[in-house]
Amino acid sequence: MFVIGSGGRHLEGELRKLGGEILSVELKKFPDGEKYVRILGSGKEVTVVSSTFAPQDEKIVELLLLGDALREKGFKKLRAVVPYLAYSRQDRVTKEGEPISVRAVMRALGLYYDELYVFDIHNPETLRFFPGKAVNVSPARVIANYFRKKLDDGIVLAPDRGALGRARAVAEELGLEYSHFEKRRVSPTEVEIRPVDINVQNKNVLIVDDIISTGGTMIKAAGILRKLGARKIFVGVTHGVFVEGAIEKVNKAVDELAVTNTIPTSVSRISIVPEILLL
Amino acid sequence: MFVIGSGGRHLEGELRKLGGEILSVELKKFPDGEKYVRILGSGKEVTVVSSTFAPQDEKIVELLLLGDALREKGFKKLRAVVPYLAYSRQDRVTKEGEPISVRAVMRALGLYYDELYVFDIHNPETLRFFPGKAVNVSPARVIANYFRKKLDDGIVLAPDRGALGRARAVAEELGLEYSHFEKRRVSPTEVEIRPVDINVQNKNVLIVDDIISTGGTMIKAAGILRKLGARKIFVGVTHGVFVEGAIEKVNKAVDELAVTNTIPTSVSRISIVPEILLL
Repeated sequence: MFVIGSGGRHLEGELRKLGGEILSVELKKFPDGEKYVRILGSGKEVTVVSSTFAPQDEKIVELLLLGDALREKGFKKLRAVVPYLAYSRQDRVTKEGEPISVRAVMRALGLYYDELYVFDIHNPETLRFFPGKAVNVSPARVIANYFRKKLDDGIVLAPDRGALGRARAVAEELGLEYSHFEKRRVSPTEVEIRPVDINVQNKNVLIVDDIISTGGTMIKAAGILRKLGARKIFVGVTHGVFVEGAIEKVNKAVDELAVTNTIPTSVSRISIVPEILLL
Repeated sequence: MFVIGSGGRHLEGELRKLGGEILSVELKKFPDGEKYVRILGSGKEVTVVSSTFAPQDEKIVELLLLGDALREKGFKKLRAVVPYLAYSRQDRVTKEGEPISVRAVMRALGLYYDELYVFDIHNPETLRFFPGKAVNVSPARVIANYFRKKLDDGIVLAPDRGALGRARAVAEELGLEYSHFEKRRVSPTEVEIRPVDINVQNKNVLIVDDIISTGGTMIKAAGILRKLGARKIFVGVTHGVFVEGAIEKVNKAVDELAVTNTIPTSVSRISIVPEILLL
């Protein structure tokens, strides 16, 4: 049984169509800006689905209010599916005096939820901040399925070594080769990125990553791949946290840009709903 | 030592002027809407001051991030002064399926803060939801001081019996009489409000309450007081959660409307900063 929060409304239709049972809720905002939630129905176990894209703090607080209402209503086991978890990039203290913001969010969710499911979190080690069971769900299968025909016998690349695991997971679904880009100093002032130990000539290439924001990395990588003679260039990313104008810029540089619908955007063409139904 | 959050900036100048030591912090918002905080300084104990008016969820999350950063920085004792606590009116389940929203907020703050100080909370019984020490600070002294000369030998009224304690507290500071309004059915279809057991004729009257929103109650009360021959009518309220246009409407109906600066508004002329420094 699912409860859909404000950050899950774009997934509701498909969840229902694929057989998910949805519990009715009332969600609104008072004139002063405070959120109001109300659970219309009852049960023992429930999965709350709400992604925390902007305005992220409203969605985080709403998740707490939903949790409080569900506990008050007698639900015994609460699972939170938060496909995109806000603050997940603030995963360490880079400058002294900073918080580990994702820790604060996970601890707050832990007040009400027994289990937390996130998709392709920036740093999976941060899951330990959630007091209950926390699971990082891979979107590799749905991304692979989306690009299978388009890629043909192409290859999968990660924009850096840190994202290699993501490229491997997608490539293994497809039975294709994979590698990653690496920075190389080409002169005292210039750094270039290059794909490592793989030939892209006349190959279709899919670049995968967890988050795309400005798209700068993808545009740079696509430029290099063109020079190296790649055929079609695809970008398949989990979370489309695009800044203003980024979609258009990336679209110009590659043959196709597609992200999952952990965040609803105009290029969120890869649905994670099948994966949610498997949880 | 104080840390000032986004909801405390309007109090910072006076806090500093009256001798409060302020720890520097960096507060900003990323382009994607996520908040960033950074503590610039160190110590053992600190009082974070931030009122949670709209956008309230951002200020609540910021308080968690500040708490996380302060703990990370080694602070041992954290106090939160939240002059206006968002969601404090959602203090009970009125319709089945609702949360007790203020409980969720207090539990979240309890993850990081040892002590919580709020001003004139709607329902003081909700303080038990905070896991640590929670204190409801009365603004009676600063409201009384603001109206002392204007009221002269006037009287203090609460808009209903539930707010009588607030009227008493202000009246006792001033050594004046106090009472409250009561609803009275004057015909099968009409209900009127009347001050109980007190003569307002030729008296200045101060009406006090915890929250003013539309101002409807105050405007109605002022109309009755005029009919009963009151001299000047003042309204002194703790939290000015005004809806659009309410300040103008109330200003027309009374001789002076003044609220405290738990929320910054154009009529927040009564400062709670002296009370914060006494905590």
